[in-house]
Amino acid sequence: MELSRYIEHTNLKPDAVPDDIKKLVDEAVKYDFFGVCINPCYVSLARKLVDESKKDIKVVCVVNFPLGANKINTTISQIKEAITDGADEIDTVINLGAVKSGNYKLAADEISMQKQAAGDKKLKVILETDLLTSAEIKVACLNCVTSNADFVKTSTGFVKDGIGATVENVKLMYSSVAKRNIGVKASGGIKSKLLALDLIAAGASRLGTSSGVQLVQ
Amino acid sequence: MELSRYIEHTNLKPDAVPDDIKKLVDEAVKYDFFGVCINPCYVSLARKLVDESKKDIKVVCVVNFPLGANKINTTISQIKEAITDGADEIDTVINLGAVKSGNYKLAADEISMQKQAAGDKKLKVILETDLLTSAEIKVACLNCVTSNADFVKTSTGFVKDGIGATVENVKLMYSSVAKRNIGVKASGGIKSKLLALDLIAAGASRLGTSSGVQLVQ
Repeated sequence: MELSRYIEHTNLKPDAVPDDIKKLVDEAVKYDFFGVCINPCYVSLARKLVDESKKDIKVVCVVNFPLGANKINTTISQIKEAITDGADEIDTVINLGAVKSGNYKLAADEISMQKQAAGDKKLKVILETDLLTSAEIKVACLNCVTSNADFVKTSTGFVKDGIGATVENVKLMYSSVAKRNIGVKASGGIKSKLLALDLIAAGASRLGTSSGVQLVQ
Repeated sequence: MELSRYIEHTNLKPDAVPDDIKKLVDEAVKYDFFGVCINPCYVSLARKLVDESKKDIKVVCVVNFPLGANKINTTISQIKEAITDGADEIDTVINLGAVKSGNYKLAADEISMQKQAAGDKKLKVILETDLLTSAEIKVACLNCVTSNADFVKTSTGFVKDGIGATVENVKLMYSSVAKRNIGVKASGGIKSKLLALDLIAAGASRLGTSSGVQLVQ
């Protein structure tokens, strides 16, 4: 098991500049990471840099991020534009207000619409586990299954005082989607190799982290 | 001076549910706040509730929020949809990557495009002062002037370990836009009446806060 192949090397900082994205891609090349995960404004640049590297590094774009509080039309447009710009995969945030108010049908319908827009590109759905109960996580996972999402993902990394990915939540998510051909991406606060390996053991097949270099060194 | 008339009563939490927005509007009615500030998914609901109240409470919607890292097409669409849904004012985040890499022309051009989309609705531009130097704040303010923004605004409230609005930054922003018919909105971390009054004395003509009720009690 090569840890590097689990890692989506991530820079979603609001003040990231083009040089930071170049560094991100350079490191992804050097350490053989699975992909880079970035904001919509940098997809074109990352695509160009990855293509120039001639490496198979996936370009992953976040949408409806990090609050999960945009309207569905906005998110659909973001997905289409990201794919036009060269994104290989899309990480979206579930409609958190819908989930927290028990309106799971709305949350599920919006995931279905996003998957339709994403087409053959993988759609990962961030549940923001720091803000959900275990029961809400489980139902949200089932929503992702019925709505044809490709992955469930733990966290944005932007919740105030949030923990991010935990072994317990990854286990819960993995068991909730098991045998349904959906993966689990752990993200948020993954800063040690020990935690990274524990999350993989718990069922994560991807890790979203900005600490990828220190994890593999 | 009625402090309540400075306050945009704010709930931008990712897990806000419709009942939270109802509470927000009810409190705005009760305490005579200037407006309510909310995420795009709740503009229609807030508009309906405000109209039912028959009070003159402005509905303020955030866009390109909170990272300032979406593409301009997305932001333009968000502005148009928010206005269709009934928003009276739009609070956007400046292109932070552009500012931090010295590409002020791009930042200014994007503000101009947003003001065109907003038309006669006020456009406030969040600089995210926690992430900028004083020199960057000053130039960004001048960009907002030349691009016909209606307000400069300090903070999103979502910067990790950020301070939010400070008297020093509001003074700097006020002096940078003085006599140019642009207002200053202070926001982020305004939890005491003392700070609120100091920010107004420093030049703020609006306060964005989720602590409005405790400020006026």
